[in-house]
Formats: sequence, C-alpha cells, structure tokens
Amino acid sequence: VTAGARSGADVAFGVDIGGTKVLGVALDADDAVLAEARVATPHSAADPAEPSRGEVGGEVVDAVAQVVAALGREVHSGVGSHPPVGIGAPGMLDRRGVLRFSPNLQGAAGADIRALAGVRLPGTPLIVENDANCAALAEHRRGAARGADHVLMVTLGTGIGGGLISGGRVLMGAYGFAGEIGHMLVDPSGPPCPCGRRGCWERYASGGGLGRLAREAAYAGRLHEVVVLAGGDPELVRGEHVTRAALQGETGALAVMDELGWWVALGLANLTALLDPERIVLGGGLAEAGEMLLAPTRRAFADLVEGAGERPEVQIVPAALGERAGAVGAAMAARAGGLW
Amino acid sequence: VTAGARSGADVAFGVDIGGTKVLGVALDADDAVLAEARVATPHSAADPAEPSRGEVGGEVVDAVAQVVAALGREVHSGVGSHPPVGIGAPGMLDRRGVLRFSPNLQGAAGADIRALAGVRLPGTPLIVENDANCAALAEHRRGAARGADHVLMVTLGTGIGGGLISGGRVLMGAYGFAGEIGHMLVDPSGPPCPCGRRGCWERYASGGGLGRLAREAAYAGRLHEVVVLAGGDPELVRGEHVTRAALQGETGALAVMDELGWWVALGLANLTALLDPERIVLGGGLAEAGEMLLAPTRRAFADLVEGAGERPEVQIVPAALGERAGAVGAAMAARAGGLW
Repeated sequence: VTAGARSGADVAFGVDIGGTKVLGVALDADDAVLAEARVATPHSAADPAEPSRGEVGGEVVDAVAQVVAALGREVHSGVGSHPPVGIGAPGMLDRRGVLRFSPNLQGAAGADIRALAGVRLPGTPLIVENDANCAALAEHRRGAARGADHVLMVTLGTGIGGGLISGGRVLMGAYGFAGEIGHMLVDPSGPPCPCGRRGCWERYASGGGLGRLAREAAYAGRLHEVVVLAGGDPELVRGEHVTRAALQGETGALAVMDELGWWVALGLANLTALLDPERIVLGGGLAEAGEMLLAPTRRAFADLVEGAGERPEVQIVPAALGERAGAVGAAMAARAGGLW
Repeated sequence: VTAGARSGADVAFGVDIGGTKVLGVALDADDAVLAEARVATPHSAADPAEPSRGEVGGEVVDAVAQVVAALGREVHSGVGSHPPVGIGAPGMLDRRGVLRFSPNLQGAAGADIRALAGVRLPGTPLIVENDANCAALAEHRRGAARGADHVLMVTLGTGIGGGLISGGRVLMGAYGFAGEIGHMLVDPSGPPCPCGRRGCWERYASGGGLGRLAREAAYAGRLHEVVVLAGGDPELVRGEHVTRAALQGETGALAVMDELGWWVALGLANLTALLDPERIVLGGGLAEAGEMLLAPTRRAFADLVEGAGERPEVQIVPAALGERAGAVGAAMAARAGGLW
C-alpha cells in the first residue's frame, strides 16, 4: 500500500460542468482543496441546434473523465483507488442523473450523465446533482452561508442557478428539479430565452443579461467609452467591457451596473417573498464584480421586497468559495452519498 | 361533568380572518366539522388609510372572539372548558403572532394578534398562523393534497395566499414569512399594488385581478353583455359578473376567463420552476369557478412551465375543503400546537 493509496481513501473529487469550462477539485478529509483541474466545455454542448445530443453528452462526460484523471494524477490516489466523484451540471437533472432540460447546455440535454460517467469511471462511487445545489451545500458548510438555516444561493453566470436551503437542507422538490430560479418569468413582454419562453429573470440578471442591457445602452448612445473599448461596434459590447469601464468610474457603465442591480434585486425580492431567507449568497462569474453589483442590488432590494420596513434585514453577501463552489459541493456530496 | 364538557376535551376551534368575513369551525377528535360560525370582517380592517391601527386590530380580534363564543355555544364545550383555538390571518405574520404586513388587511397591520386574542380568550391555548399555511395543512391532511409530499397550496381570493409544502412540511422561512406568493412581481410595468409596488401576481390572478381584467375588456368594448349585467357602466363590472356570464357561455366573458387562466398559469409556472411540486391545489373564492378557470389554466401552464415535455405532469386540482380550508387547518394546528 503506497502513501498515495492510503490518502486516497479520504479524498473526494468534485467536477462542475459549466457553460464554458469543466472545473474539478480534489478535497481532503477536512474539505481542503488538494488539487484543481479544468478543461474547456465542448463547444457543441452549448449549441441549441446540435443534432446529435447523445454524442455531445458523451463528449461532455469525456471532459469530466479527463478532469478526474488529472485530479487522480495530482493527488496520487493510485491505481485501483477510486475516490468518490460528484458531478454538478446546470439545469433540470432528475434523481437518476439524467439531464432532462438545460437551456445553457442544450447540446447535452437528454444525456444520462450518471450512466455515461459510470462507463468512463468504472468502480467509482458517483453522485450527479444540480450545480447550484452543490454550490449551496459548499457555501453552507464552508462558505458565506455558514450558520444560516434559511439561505438562497444564487449563481449569476452564463445563466442563473439557484440552491434553496430551508431548515438547513437543500430543497430538491418532487423530482429533483427545484431551484430553477433563472426561469422565473418576470416580464411577459421581455426578450426571448433559450428555454423557449420570454422575459425569464436570467435574460436580465445574468452575465448574458448584462451584455444585453449594455448593448441596449450602447445603441442608445449612453455607453460611448465602452463601445470604444469593445472595438467601436455596439454589437460587440459584452458584460466584461461594462464591468471594466465601471471599475474605472465611467458614468454610463455605472448606470448599466445600477440597472443590472435593479434586475438582480427584483428576482431576489420575489424569492424572498416566497421563501423568507435570512441570507442570500451571490456567486457565479458576475458576482466577481463585488460591491459594484452588490451596492445597487442592496439599494433596489430594499425598495422591492414586500414589507421591507417590517421584516429583519436580509443579508445579501458574496459567495466565499468563488468559481469553485459548485465543484467543492459536488465533492462533499460525493463523500456523503448525496446532498443531505 | 357534563357531556358537553367531556366532548369539549377533544374539540379544537379554528378561525380564519379573511378580507370580507371571519369564518370559524369546531372540529371533533377526527377532524370532522361539528359547527361553523361567521361574522363580517370589520370594514376598517381592509382600509389602507385607517389611522388607528391598534384599535382596528382589536376590532378584528373581537370578531374572532365572537366567532369562538358562537362555536362554544354550538358544541356545548361548557363553562371552564377551553378548547384550543387556532387563528389564521393573511399576510406576513411573525412567529410571535404579530401581523407585520398585510396588503389585504391593512387596517390591522401591526396588530399583535396573539396578545389581543390572549386578553379576549383567557385560559385558551392559542396558535396564530398565516391563513394559506393553515389551508395547506388542511388540504394536505384531509383534502386535495393528501398523499403528496411536494405541494403548492394557492388561495385565489381577494389577494393570493400561498402554502408551500416540501417533504410533507409547510415551509415557514427564517421568520415565518414564507409563502407570500401573491407579491411575486411578474410585470415591472404592471398596475400598482396595495403592497406599494407594481405588477404583483395578485394584481392579475386574484378575484380583484379578474375584476381589473374584466373592466379593461369592458372599456375596450369586448364585454357588452357583462356590462349590461353590471348595470350598464364598465366601471361597475366585478369578477362575479364575468364568471356568471362565462357560465352562460358568453364569448367575451369566456375570453376574460382564458386571460385570467393565463395569468394564474404564469405564476404557477414560476413556482414550479422554483419548487418542483407534484401537485398544485387551487383554493379560495376564485377557484369556485371550477373547470371554467382550471381548463385554461392547465392549457397555459403546459406552455409556460420550464421543460414542459421533460418533466412529469404537475397535477393542478381544485381544493377539496372549499372556503373552510383555512379555518380547518387553523383548528388542526391548534390541536397539534403548531403547523408541524
């Protein structure tokens, strides 16, 4: 028995399948991150027009297996040692591990993630869960949601993911589909969404939503410096151009961040009316904007939440585990045999 | 010891404070309704401009005490016998029994319902809970939600109330305020709501919402027969005129019921994305419209819910306990010492 194989017994791997990257971590017995690995998400996975979905699901899980292999080499878990692997994926994952519907990973919709992973990782204990539910678990155990029993975990990335913690547990719903908060419809006359409807919250309050709000402002002539930054064409304006210009104090960009904060707050206010959390944790790439997003969000939330003056303040805080939260939670779930 | 006093030991009372009536029931040990009593809700309770809120809260609880006294006479619970009393009220009730915020009972907002009831009903074990949470408990134990662990109870009355059951339990939230589903904002440019914001779901999908949709159709000239029924003035059109005309097959009225069903479905689709229920129970006065509302609601829901073809069908069913559900649930909670 090698040292590697011995330590392997306490290790757990978590892999988060995102819209742009597949990110994995290895945790030790104390949930400390021993290693990290990542590969790009196969392009076809995000393509709604992808015709051969079965194959794309396989390619996505190939990427997961690559990440697991890289983690295994890093922590020397050894031949014959199979740390448990947790896989997080965005969208409606059923309890058997099939990705039933996924507006931001459409090429892989319908894929039986658990079965595909079982073939590629034989002998490995496997857990497959929604990515935001995994992030909620990680933030609750080791991050910004610690000590709170009623928490909303909101991941603002390509889309919006949600993990709803009530009484200390992640709400799963009847079929495992709870927490699809990005597809809460907030404006019936809003722009079309990849999910097939119009005016979903994530059309406004995600990374993609920021880009859309920014392009509207650019075409309206309110974002001159940002358009220059993007190469001169309003159509080329992306969220990152706005956050960069806002960091430099550009007035038009700050106004767009305020608008984004209003839309983030609108959804948070709805969720608060429904679920009455004590704390809301904002994660995902967009949350990296920090106070530039948090400040206008908190201001608008105070206006928008029902009974604002009559309820204890809801804490709106940034995630502590950053982009790794989903992978860390997936590893925790893998070790525990499930989210709770 | 009289027969009444003996039976009184097994009896529980429940009283539901509504926007128009205070309705009470006495339940026997098997949760059968032994007696019912009702009085009108004091007019000032629904008045947002009421200046002396403390007094109005007292008047509302006087009405509760009247109903309890009437129930006591009916079931001969006897002098010195104090069956437990559960009180249901609409809006944000905190865990101490204070009505913190209540858009449809504004005159009583701020009232310490539990303390006021304690003075009027000395020696009586008291429970004070949100009305829709009580209705959810009743429908789950004895009504249309039986056998389902993940249920949305939606009461479509003057406003919209919600009781969210997950894993067989009513979700209370951090401070007892969960389930305020009527104040989910679904259209930022929508009409003003008594809660102080715009475009809340209950501006569209409640009894009041039906009246508003109907008056809009009337002014647009699409509800000729209904306007005649209401006395000739579009401004006088109320929800009940529309449901009556729709029952008689009037085309314009049926179109308004379809529109209402679309708005009901929109909110149900949002709640389903968030909470993934297996069953949705529709109660409250508006649900008495039956299939005339249920059929268009089910049709629109199938279009509006995320991943419609990829998830098991969500059953949308009418409440079984009718207008008594809140009072019955309040009595059950009184006997059990709480909602769960």
